[in-house]
Amino acid sequence: MTYCVGLLLDEGMVLLSDTRTNAGLDNISTYRKMFTFEEPGERVITIMTAGSLSVTQTTVARLREAIEEDDSAHPSILKAPTMLQVAEIVGKTLSDVTTEISDKMERMSQRASASMIVAGQRKGGAMRMFLIYPEGNFIEATEDTPFLQIGEHKYGKPILDRVVTPQTSLLDGQKAALLSMDSTLRSNLSVGMPLDLEVIETNACRVTMKRRIEAEDDVFKAMSADWSNALRDAFTDIKI
Amino acid sequence: MTYCVGLLLDEGMVLLSDTRTNAGLDNISTYRKMFTFEEPGERVITIMTAGSLSVTQTTVARLREAIEEDDSAHPSILKAPTMLQVAEIVGKTLSDVTTEISDKMERMSQRASASMIVAGQRKGGAMRMFLIYPEGNFIEATEDTPFLQIGEHKYGKPILDRVVTPQTSLLDGQKAALLSMDSTLRSNLSVGMPLDLEVIETNACRVTMKRRIEAEDDVFKAMSADWSNALRDAFTDIKI
Repeated sequence: MTYCVGLLLDEGMVLLSDTRTNAGLDNISTYRKMFTFEEPGERVITIMTAGSLSVTQTTVARLREAIEEDDSAHPSILKAPTMLQVAEIVGKTLSDVTTEISDKMERMSQRASASMIVAGQRKGGAMRMFLIYPEGNFIEATEDTPFLQIGEHKYGKPILDRVVTPQTSLLDGQKAALLSMDSTLRSNLSVGMPLDLEVIETNACRVTMKRRIEAEDDVFKAMSADWSNALRDAFTDIKI
Repeated sequence: MTYCVGLLLDEGMVLLSDTRTNAGLDNISTYRKMFTFEEPGERVITIMTAGSLSVTQTTVARLREAIEEDDSAHPSILKAPTMLQVAEIVGKTLSDVTTEISDKMERMSQRASASMIVAGQRKGGAMRMFLIYPEGNFIEATEDTPFLQIGEHKYGKPILDRVVTPQTSLLDGQKAALLSMDSTLRSNLSVGMPLDLEVIETNACRVTMKRRIEAEDDVFKAMSADWSNALRDAFTDIKI
């Protein structure tokens, strides 16, 4: 499994993904699930992936190839005039790859699928964030629902529901994303450290902060312990 | 959907279930999902149900019939010598009903299934709690994992993972179960009020507290608001 979350805030975007990939329970590896494409100051696009690794790797590889080749059959996401068209290119590529791989797997009565979060901004355009479904269609984060999640989303949703609004600061946004990840790490073994964290400030059109958080990261460990203690204290204080 | 949770604590058991049943999103009803069978002081058995209403109602109805008839083909759960045998009777009945109903539905390429939590004690025996799967097999709550959940279990699991141990008091156990339900109610529309709450104290062999909590219940509303505020305060205090 996987857990990726993206927040679309007035001040910018916060993106967080884990790195655990498993085939069954006894074959666990670490793979990056966050991919950034940028021309700093001009445009930035970050893609996070969940689902079958063969589908996500092939999709990202084809998007990269198209950036180098850029012909009408394989348009480059770095040349697309709007973020909406970026989402459409990613959606079409994902849907094509999913279909091809599933056709191969059908003989074994299996299917492969994946979903993605695509977030970015080009100079002069608005900052936008999309969730792309395996079929290639997508939904967009809005003021009412300023976050998107893929993978194992349930354990980490209550904290986001409670604290995230478009007015949330970038610092609080990072805190909310990390605590949401912390709840997921605790309850689902197939989501694992290290984590990739990225911040894209509004109108910067580039990644303004990028960090890999390792399992032994002291700040993350302290935050996780503080949150556990705060929850236990809050629990003790509640009256019924 | 449904959410039911049972805690097996040193001081006794806490059982909590919602009451929402839906066929699709536009056909929502209220049905009790907690059923108690008792000879006060001698034995008490409470069953909570999740899944297809036709399966759970038929299973509970057959268990009731068997209590009245009690022959070797249909043993009564109130006469079973141990809680393990109660779990086996419930498991067999559930599996039989699931198979019968699924056979009928197979023509429509559909299946029906359900799972149950069975908790209780008979005089002289230990207090025990089981989770019965649709196939009739079961697992038991232990010291290491002193709670069982059926239905929409993910949203409400983090709080239980953090605060519930066998040494948790009955009052704190009720609080933990209610807060776990509160998180689930917030995140999944198909889990709904009113709630049924029951406490069975160790060695009492009867229900020692039983309460239906309506949507307008002031105590529950205050607890839910206090918890939201406490979480927001804790969030504000965390440093990253």
